[in-house]
Amino acid sequence: MSWLGLPEGTGFGIDNLPYGVFSDASGRRRTGVAIGDAVLDLAAATGDDVHATGSLNAFLARGPRAWADLRDQLTGWLTDETHRGRVEPHLLPRDAVTLHLPVEIADYVDFYSSRHHAENLGRMFRPDSPPLTPNWEHLPIGYHGRAGTVQVSGTPVVRPSGQRRAPADDAPTFGPSQRLDIEAEVGFVVGVGSELGRPVPLAAFADHVFGVCLVNDWSARDIQSWEYVPLGPFLGKSFLTSVSPWVVPLAALEAARVAPPARDVPLLPYLDDAGADPWGLDIAIEVRLNGELVSCPPFDLMYWTAAQQLAHTTVNGASLRTGDLFASGTVSGPAADQRGSFIELSWGGAEPLALADGTTRTFLEDGDVVILTATAPGTAGGRISLGEVTGRVLPAR
Amino acid sequence: MSWLGLPEGTGFGIDNLPYGVFSDASGRRRTGVAIGDAVLDLAAATGDDVHATGSLNAFLARGPRAWADLRDQLTGWLTDETHRGRVEPHLLPRDAVTLHLPVEIADYVDFYSSRHHAENLGRMFRPDSPPLTPNWEHLPIGYHGRAGTVQVSGTPVVRPSGQRRAPADDAPTFGPSQRLDIEAEVGFVVGVGSELGRPVPLAAFADHVFGVCLVNDWSARDIQSWEYVPLGPFLGKSFLTSVSPWVVPLAALEAARVAPPARDVPLLPYLDDAGADPWGLDIAIEVRLNGELVSCPPFDLMYWTAAQQLAHTTVNGASLRTGDLFASGTVSGPAADQRGSFIELSWGGAEPLALADGTTRTFLEDGDVVILTATAPGTAGGRISLGEVTGRVLPAR
Repeated sequence: MSWLGLPEGTGFGIDNLPYGVFSDASGRRRTGVAIGDAVLDLAAATGDDVHATGSLNAFLARGPRAWADLRDQLTGWLTDETHRGRVEPHLLPRDAVTLHLPVEIADYVDFYSSRHHAENLGRMFRPDSPPLTPNWEHLPIGYHGRAGTVQVSGTPVVRPSGQRRAPADDAPTFGPSQRLDIEAEVGFVVGVGSELGRPVPLAAFADHVFGVCLVNDWSARDIQSWEYVPLGPFLGKSFLTSVSPWVVPLAALEAARVAPPARDVPLLPYLDDAGADPWGLDIAIEVRLNGELVSCPPFDLMYWTAAQQLAHTTVNGASLRTGDLFASGTVSGPAADQRGSFIELSWGGAEPLALADGTTRTFLEDGDVVILTATAPGTAGGRISLGEVTGRVLPAR
Repeated sequence: MSWLGLPEGTGFGIDNLPYGVFSDASGRRRTGVAIGDAVLDLAAATGDDVHATGSLNAFLARGPRAWADLRDQLTGWLTDETHRGRVEPHLLPRDAVTLHLPVEIADYVDFYSSRHHAENLGRMFRPDSPPLTPNWEHLPIGYHGRAGTVQVSGTPVVRPSGQRRAPADDAPTFGPSQRLDIEAEVGFVVGVGSELGRPVPLAAFADHVFGVCLVNDWSARDIQSWEYVPLGPFLGKSFLTSVSPWVVPLAALEAARVAPPARDVPLLPYLDDAGADPWGLDIAIEVRLNGELVSCPPFDLMYWTAAQQLAHTTVNGASLRTGDLFASGTVSGPAADQRGSFIELSWGGAEPLALADGTTRTFLEDGDVVILTATAPGTAGGRISLGEVTGRVLPAR
């Protein structure tokens, strides 16, 4: 219990303590921790300049011992009322601050780790082939995205223009995307880098990864489907990727850890987590369109875990850097209302989604607002919040 | 003419003046300019701290006016002997300094802009389909690579391990790549970033791009061919990308500008450079294996120019950052001895290359040393050098 008198069911209780970067009227960006409806100014409360750099990177680079020490210290401060006088002056109302991109992103890798999503997309994009490509069950398929367009929640989603070719056309045309979509994902943030040439095994996951955020990997399906063969998605994805402002430490997700689904084929040793501590996570995502709940993607069903993604990414000797972001790929469950993208929810536009206001939706329209939220079991028995990622679609320029 | 008494045919004459980052015995990294066999310590010679940051990024961010001003100043210093006393104390022998990665890479995009290369790869990887995918002539295909593993020339090439599946096998196996390859490319370095949501038109190329380097995008073909469907290359490319230590400013390449090849299909307006100043570049690349010249890829035949690549990358609103690296993709000409990769030179391993020492080569063997060099017409009538990218293959760990 905290002496703060936290709101009922806050999701930002003493067992969460996620990190973000905020500014107040002074404009100075510094690190804060969310607690209840407040943010604790870590730069001021600790006097440590690492929290005054404007990103979490320098703190993340200090590593797991430093992360645990600060978490212990904060837990003490916020539970033991004798610290109240020291801490309270540095608490600001969260709705009075501006939240910024918490991490300076180094490399951004986006995976494709939901079987249900991969099967759905395969059926739509490659109807004449098996839904899963032959490699899918053997490795976590991923590709590099554009790190420079990863932005904080709330960044406007300007509808991208680009080339797209309708099935009946010989040549592509240019114009605003007509199939603007979301991808509801979970992202993992690397704190401690690794050396070139030295793979990071499954068991070293928590030595490198600091925590978790929510990701909306905005996607233009018409641009993507024209461009993506043979080298993968490029402009269909690179215009914007939004992340939640709060990075939840792995330490706050201990109660959320679950075993991933059973594997359908034997995995090569570097990916085989059967004997390892599992890194499946019971995170429940909710997708809202203009306030209406349209999907509840279940992260616990993801086939590939982030530990496997990390082991795979480095098995060829590629190094990690502080600030690397690994996103899960769209989270979709087996049920129709568990799909994490509109291309799945509307089955490629063929089955428009009926909304409560009487309208229907296939892909996003100008003015639409999408909000992703998520919660997970906390260590105190309730649920902790991963915050939200929101974005409003603006017309093409 | 310079008062330095430059070596005959140096390639690093007064019309080149490329920028790099070096250190001497002190270990301090600072910006230098190559001239003849020397490097001019810009931090010391100018007293400007922007050249003492350990990367070119801060200087590049200043923009074209600052680039031109410094180039004018250096040209004056190195041609007018009255400056000798001021300049000479800051000249170091190039072979006495250590060269470092010149640019802190932001995002790295690798293109696929040689028709001959794309056709060759298409024939080998997708023998049952037309060699070019339907989109190839309509847009410069590209994908994001791993910025964190872009390293300076000379970095050892540790043979990567990973999954690969032989055609006859049901399941993949794990082990060292047996098809380790090079890709001879030219890279373009962004100096001035752009705003999210604002495309950069063809005509603004030189407002954003500072200069050119050589790139060897080391590739593991067996890993790549197993993983790359449907989201593109990942581990087959991400273990190492080597760049030359000297970035040649666009200003030094004025005499190298040529028209790109005729277009086979009408281009959409944002890519149509018919009425624009062309950004084809007459750069002659040479590929040496263990000292033997094995290929001479001609950059002037590239179908897509870097200006088109930049316009394409940003047409969806994606922003640029200082330090973004755009690589051309493998440079291959129509002749067998103009191919920029061993998979092409040996036609997928089917036609081993006969070497002067009596051995043959399909893909790279441990101990092999590959050196890429390149020259282009300079503004003084001779040829300027783009320096070299070298790497020695070390056994898998």
